Amino acid sequence: MATARTLRITLAYDGTELHGWQIQPSAPTIQGLVAGVCARILGAPTKVVGASRTDAGVHALGQVASLRTTSTISPGGLARALNALLPPAIRVRDAVEVAPGFDARRSALGKRYAYLIDRSATPDPFLRRFAWHVSFPLVPGAMRQALALTRGKRDFSALCAAPGRGRSPVCTVRSARLVTRKSRLVVLISADSFLHHMVRNLAGSLVEVGRGARPPEWMAELLEGRDRARAGPTAPAHGLALVRVLYPRSP
Amino acid sequence: MATARTLRITLAYDGTELHGWQIQPSAPTIQGLVAGVCARILGAPTKVVGASRTDAGVHALGQVASLRTTSTISPGGLARALNALLPPAIRVRDAVEVAPGFDARRSALGKRYAYLIDRSATPDPFLRRFAWHVSFPLVPGAMRQALALTRGKRDFSALCAAPGRGRSPVCTVRSARLVTRKSRLVVLISADSFLHHMVRNLAGSLVEVGRGARPPEWMAELLEGRDRARAGPTAPAHGLALVRVLYPRSP
Repeated sequence: MATARTLRITLAYDGTELHGWQIQPSAPTIQGLVAGVCARILGAPTKVVGASRTDAGVHALGQVASLRTTSTISPGGLARALNALLPPAIRVRDAVEVAPGFDARRSALGKRYAYLIDRSATPDPFLRRFAWHVSFPLVPGAMRQALALTRGKRDFSALCAAPGRGRSPVCTVRSARLVTRKSRLVVLISADSFLHHMVRNLAGSLVEVGRGARPPEWMAELLEGRDRARAGPTAPAHGLALVRVLYPRSP
Repeated sequence: MATARTLRITLAYDGTELHGWQIQPSAPTIQGLVAGVCARILGAPTKVVGASRTDAGVHALGQVASLRTTSTISPGGLARALNALLPPAIRVRDAVEVAPGFDARRSALGKRYAYLIDRSATPDPFLRRFAWHVSFPLVPGAMRQALALTRGKRDFSALCAAPGRGRSPVCTVRSARLVTRKSRLVVLISADSFLHHMVRNLAGSLVEVGRGARPPEWMAELLEGRDRARAGPTAPAHGLALVRVLYPRSP
């Protein structure tokens, strides 16, 4: 029997017409489509593990997935075959062979997400798939102050959609920045782990601060209170993108 | 009877799912959708004249249209009502009242177009609606040299899809630049007028030069020969965007 190799693939996708990462019996998902095409290429059912279970409508610039195969295909050959067979909304940017113990989800040291807000007077038709259009005025300075209060090791229960799923609500936010560019705002956040809907709830809460409904200091109180009901609304999925997954000695 | 006013509206659109500017009996077009919604808002059939008859799949950042109405609606009110009723792929960026003789097409002094090429190894899924993905290597320097040969007043028959339609094939190209940014190339061209498919045929011919099939000087020969059959292939519609229309004393 051939030896199984472990491959790591990096994916970008426009999630607009996809039902999220996780495989579903009757809807197109990234995991389902990639696993299906891998099975065809590799000649055997293939389990594809993703670093992040992105929600329906969420995009990725650098999602990472791992799989094991006994096929002798080269990583580059697999990437080309996947790109030939996957829909154009999903592209394999890179494929490499990695050490046998590698698991895209368990081996990850952290992830970086971007949340894009379009605050132009009329929504930009070219951003409508990729940005949350906010039609009221926002004060970026206040949002920046509130965002700074999320840095470090904290309990993020107040920003978690489904607490108590047997995992710790404590995450370490390594960097959290707000970038403004013309009429766009981008929340960039990097952490060792993220809770369910955490970035979307954070974006929704930041917009509460940006529009003046809450002062920046409220973010600290909100996190201390650990009560989801007190946070802002969940920002829509289509503004969110998984930017990068970090691994030990990641290139 | 109320006096008719002339209004000028500026539009941005993602042309991916639209059948071009010009009204068609049974397909969604920008002119058709805008005229239909204007008729509802203004309470009378409304003729909407566009500066450029963009092809199916072509986008616009700043298409300009004119219309006449006896309604007393404010230009801002018309813009808001149009944005409320048009599909999100079409946005009205601005509406103003103009002098009675204004006609978006006949009053235009020139137009500016952008043609976007994605030359990343794997097509960027976020650009697939807005850029032509070219998978072979391109030499921007050669393309830039060829592009420079299009500047000035010239006969562009060689780049025209439908010559002999009773109009002059002579256009004055005021500026023609190639901008590179990461793996993207943008051809920016401004002229007093454009022939049918001229920018797409130019982009296709520039790619012939960029990939080394033709030397840069070939562009001059091509234009002098006035023979469409000798030009490169027509580049796909979805890489093209109408950037701006220029008018006398345009803001």
